[in-house]
Amino acid sequence: MDKWKRSSRLVDMTRQLLSEPYRLIPLTAFAERYNSAKSSISEDLAIIHEVFQSGGSGELETVAGAAGGVRYIPKIDRQRALDVLKVLCEQLSNPDRILPGGFLYLSDLLGDATLLSEIGRIFATVFAGKKIDAIMTVETKGIPLAYAAASYLRAPVVIARYGYRVTEGSVVTVNTISGSGRQMRQLSLSKRSLAEGSRVLIIDDFMKAGGTIRGMMDLLHEFNAEVVGVGVMVESAAEQRLVESYVSLAAVTEVDVKERKIHVELGNLFTREGEWKDVKN
Amino acid sequence: MDKWKRSSRLVDMTRQLLSEPYRLIPLTAFAERYNSAKSSISEDLAIIHEVFQSGGSGELETVAGAAGGVRYIPKIDRQRALDVLKVLCEQLSNPDRILPGGFLYLSDLLGDATLLSEIGRIFATVFAGKKIDAIMTVETKGIPLAYAAASYLRAPVVIARYGYRVTEGSVVTVNTISGSGRQMRQLSLSKRSLAEGSRVLIIDDFMKAGGTIRGMMDLLHEFNAEVVGVGVMVESAAEQRLVESYVSLAAVTEVDVKERKIHVELGNLFTREGEWKDVKN
Repeated sequence: MDKWKRSSRLVDMTRQLLSEPYRLIPLTAFAERYNSAKSSISEDLAIIHEVFQSGGSGELETVAGAAGGVRYIPKIDRQRALDVLKVLCEQLSNPDRILPGGFLYLSDLLGDATLLSEIGRIFATVFAGKKIDAIMTVETKGIPLAYAAASYLRAPVVIARYGYRVTEGSVVTVNTISGSGRQMRQLSLSKRSLAEGSRVLIIDDFMKAGGTIRGMMDLLHEFNAEVVGVGVMVESAAEQRLVESYVSLAAVTEVDVKERKIHVELGNLFTREGEWKDVKN
Repeated sequence: MDKWKRSSRLVDMTRQLLSEPYRLIPLTAFAERYNSAKSSISEDLAIIHEVFQSGGSGELETVAGAAGGVRYIPKIDRQRALDVLKVLCEQLSNPDRILPGGFLYLSDLLGDATLLSEIGRIFATVFAGKKIDAIMTVETKGIPLAYAAASYLRAPVVIARYGYRVTEGSVVTVNTISGSGRQMRQLSLSKRSLAEGSRVLIIDDFMKAGGTIRGMMDLLHEFNAEVVGVGVMVESAAEQRLVESYVSLAAVTEVDVKERKIHVELGNLFTREGEWKDVKN
């Protein structure tokens, strides 16, 4: 096989690294693919790392030793995240979202693949380094967010469902209770969807009191799984919270159905400590 | 601003093009970002195009004129698609998937972000050039597939739901009937989720008689929308089909519950005419 030119090699390596975040690729795999010396590959990787990092789109992590290699860790820088979330808050503030009962219409935002991809990168940045075995969400509206995060964190998605579906096989079921305590629903997770002892990140679109997320945590307890984080796109004012620790991207502090006004602020993402410590400002 | 070195420029351009498939980027935007001559940018784009195309991961499309620029069209080559689908068929053949009633457990496959990404590229290749305004699916298991395709086709996703949900606002509802004619269910789509006259690609995980897909087509008819294609991950043997034209990736031809055997073949993807004509073999 011919030796690749550096320019072509850089394009192809960039493509491969971006397409498989978190996968450790041995340097020898690159050296063989491009019929190039490992020293040249190392130089290329240094260039790619430098461009990624200065552009705020993540970094390459090098693992030394015989079983070593390089992996791409996707990130988003603080400023870009802030820009994305400002647009999100602005869109959430649109009074046309107000539905009867004070509910908010979110399906357009959750259908926007570009916005979802940015939100996925934000969650991936916040929860980088948590060693995640699976990402859990609940049907229906949490699903796109969970997959957006999964595509950057390279983890499988498991979906809890309300009630029981014949296509899930044996399930574990818990009762969930809404924050107001008025409504009870059964939440189920297929037994074969999650290995015992998994480290799980919970992602959902909306949290008020947190009854649904509490239900997912109860389900995970039944699988002896560990919750390594909770991320929600929107949190809403609630008299009591059933979930103590979570990361929210936006916070709806008031919905005035009569005056048709929605007040939206940034979530607790930037006020929590440490999440952005690894990100270049 | 300093002029970028070609090596750094190639890495950054590759990253940007891959992150926004189908988005037309003016050459002047690149020239300004990298403080480089348009001629250098064109040379870079030629290199990227060549690497993408020879690697079977798509191509750059150049649009001439004042409103012109370049866009990345994601594709997967025939051989790679075949490799992915062989693995899919093999996994589908595992008799452990058989659930009571002859249903198949698919949630593990639909939770696998890497497999989904490959399937998304396959659908993007099949339906490239169809001018898609939206991708439609039905809750719950079709959702990850629709988003996987959307991430490569850069189209918003709309989700039809069974019954009525308060968070969807006003909806249009149709009756769907299963192929056996024994079961009727209401399928709804939020009125504000889709503009009149949209060109829509339908994606779902599983099709037997096609009652659910027929229901989605009926819904789209109510929106004066046009169905530009139907893609399903798995089709299953049925006495009659309610959908004439569709693309399937895999076909379950037999499920023997007693003998615990599943027979799976490749879907109609490669036997249909023309879909792969643009793809380098």
